[in-house]
Amino acid sequence: MLNFNYYNPTRVVFGTKTIGKVGSLAKLYGKKILLHYGGGSIKQNGVYEQVCNSLKEANLQIIELPGVVPNPHLSLVREGIELCKKEQIDLILAVGGGSVIDSAKAIAFGALLRSDEDVWDDYYMKQEYVVREAMPVGVVLTIPAAGSESSSGSVITDWEKNLKRDVGSELLIPKFAIMDPETNYTLPAYQTACGASDILAHLMERYFTLEKYNDLSDRLLESAMRNVIAYGPLALKHPKEYRYRAELMWTGTIAHNNLLDRGRVGDWASHDIEHEISGIYDIAHGAGLSIVFPAWMKYVYHTNIDRFVQFAIRVWDVSLSFDDKDDIVKVAIERLEDFYRSLDLPVRLSDANIGSENIRKMAESAMIGRTSLGNFQKLDADAIEKILKLAL
Amino acid sequence: MLNFNYYNPTRVVFGTKTIGKVGSLAKLYGKKILLHYGGGSIKQNGVYEQVCNSLKEANLQIIELPGVVPNPHLSLVREGIELCKKEQIDLILAVGGGSVIDSAKAIAFGALLRSDEDVWDDYYMKQEYVVREAMPVGVVLTIPAAGSESSSGSVITDWEKNLKRDVGSELLIPKFAIMDPETNYTLPAYQTACGASDILAHLMERYFTLEKYNDLSDRLLESAMRNVIAYGPLALKHPKEYRYRAELMWTGTIAHNNLLDRGRVGDWASHDIEHEISGIYDIAHGAGLSIVFPAWMKYVYHTNIDRFVQFAIRVWDVSLSFDDKDDIVKVAIERLEDFYRSLDLPVRLSDANIGSENIRKMAESAMIGRTSLGNFQKLDADAIEKILKLAL
Repeated sequence: MLNFNYYNPTRVVFGTKTIGKVGSLAKLYGKKILLHYGGGSIKQNGVYEQVCNSLKEANLQIIELPGVVPNPHLSLVREGIELCKKEQIDLILAVGGGSVIDSAKAIAFGALLRSDEDVWDDYYMKQEYVVREAMPVGVVLTIPAAGSESSSGSVITDWEKNLKRDVGSELLIPKFAIMDPETNYTLPAYQTACGASDILAHLMERYFTLEKYNDLSDRLLESAMRNVIAYGPLALKHPKEYRYRAELMWTGTIAHNNLLDRGRVGDWASHDIEHEISGIYDIAHGAGLSIVFPAWMKYVYHTNIDRFVQFAIRVWDVSLSFDDKDDIVKVAIERLEDFYRSLDLPVRLSDANIGSENIRKMAESAMIGRTSLGNFQKLDADAIEKILKLAL
Repeated sequence: MLNFNYYNPTRVVFGTKTIGKVGSLAKLYGKKILLHYGGGSIKQNGVYEQVCNSLKEANLQIIELPGVVPNPHLSLVREGIELCKKEQIDLILAVGGGSVIDSAKAIAFGALLRSDEDVWDDYYMKQEYVVREAMPVGVVLTIPAAGSESSSGSVITDWEKNLKRDVGSELLIPKFAIMDPETNYTLPAYQTACGASDILAHLMERYFTLEKYNDLSDRLLESAMRNVIAYGPLALKHPKEYRYRAELMWTGTIAHNNLLDRGRVGDWASHDIEHEISGIYDIAHGAGLSIVFPAWMKYVYHTNIDRFVQFAIRVWDVSLSFDDKDDIVKVAIERLEDFYRSLDLPVRLSDANIGSENIRKMAESAMIGRTSLGNFQKLDADAIEKILKLAL
């Protein structure tokens, strides 16, 4: 077990009819709110109205910045930064899923940079500087997936250059997160499925480590994985069943608030490889992960087969003789693929109509500004190419 | 699943050789530190010296208040309150286990009360007021057990009246907690065992609820319970094995930082009943719990036998036919008792040389200022008497 720090001060307000609390929470941070959201689904499901009513009741002034799309754009971040400066915003309120929250976080520290710094070049790309200060971000979460509502990370895409990169800082952890599972009732099935895939991926990235003697983290991760595996398909089949939505939503937060991987370094190669796919094809992150993860597993499991055997037994209940550990691992990966299929997610590039045409390009792009990907096994461009070919 | 809030801003610094960070952490809260500790074991194991050196290196002024004993005394709390006022203390640094931390928390809000309020009468006993403000508390944890290092609670005993009571407020959550598992190497075996028992009890109190559809919390609790059951006896047998100590120490924090029981109301009757025993006999809290919990289980399990069946299967791997659920539960309780015995803890009052002489008195004392104990099953004085008789 490695030495570690843990600090996560997000105030979570979870449950039915909780959105009305946003005004009193936002008020703690000032008077002028940047309301940041996506394509308008929150106007259809009533969340927008509930949020605005609550903010107005608290006498807060609202400046709107809609238009965040999945794999959020650098261009909108730049717009938000200018808006925060011009309007002297006190709090950025992200209403939506991970893309909206990640965009809000980028704006939050981007608005406070020195004039000689650039949010994209100096932070997301070169990672030369450490975030020094950030505006407060609040969240009303409507999509359980990214875990960004209480995480320190932000992922942004430069669509001009097809580059997707991340920044992390505890200063970016949201101050509060309101989570009402009922807001998930109207999510498209595909988005529920991609969310479950993303949540499971966050847990698996943390699970596959070379660090030994860190059993509590293993067990907590296994518990959370079993919960996604149990309730993801149920939430998909019964979209308005509160308890299934609630299990999935809360698991999504726990999966990514960093408590579950203290004492170890996770892998994260599958996330980085997926970012290359969704950086070119604009596929949903969760759908990219269901393609990459099985291929990554097939490529790396011999690095520490016993870790995959533990995964097979404790997460997937694989009950086969230890005489053939490869068999145990293969069955676990098959069960993972079956899980994805039960959510109607792609498990091969071909399922998403992606061919081999950009594989080398994606493998090389993933290495820009990096010496390797992943920690369980360090990957170079050739290894990434092989993994993507296993995913064809 | 009930609606819930979650907020836990304690900064945890965990691992070997981390005590030297206390100066830089304490410095964030001011210049004058009340160093609060127990009977002097921290002087024998070197912790005191490490803490003082680090505080001095950070140019902090140290005022000492030693002398905290297990089941911490109201009288020392009153002394600490006067000292904080007189010396204009900025931060209370608790170096020790749960008793020291709980005492520090009582001082932290007691020092800021109005002159017409009394810390004991108005807060611990009558619970009339809500804590409005508190001085910052920092922790260097040397005993994994109480979980007070990141919890909102404080338990204090008035030894003149043999009353033990608790107060909770998020304002009492420590600002930081430094946790070096090596500080546990020199703990007496009995204290290690009592710590494991206390940790398991915190998990079981949260597990036994009547609230349905809260499976993630169940699973996380089960994971943490299995970890205590696995590593508690190992830490006892191999006191200087870092990895066993680390598992137990981190589980102790997770067990009580409130993340693992969101969406439900725990029981806590066993804790309250135990407080009556240790309020009279000055037995260690963990040893009282290993006596009370099996008896409580035997008395209440028919209230919701299926919850105990889940406990038996998921925590204790009981593999018996569902034709006789009582059998399944009885085997689980036997395994729990065997676990306690493997730690050399008492499982009956007689094991701790306690007879029936005060049973009625304890049962009635537990009801002072309360209408019932526990939530899984509401207990009155007669029920508590029956449970204590089952523990004879």
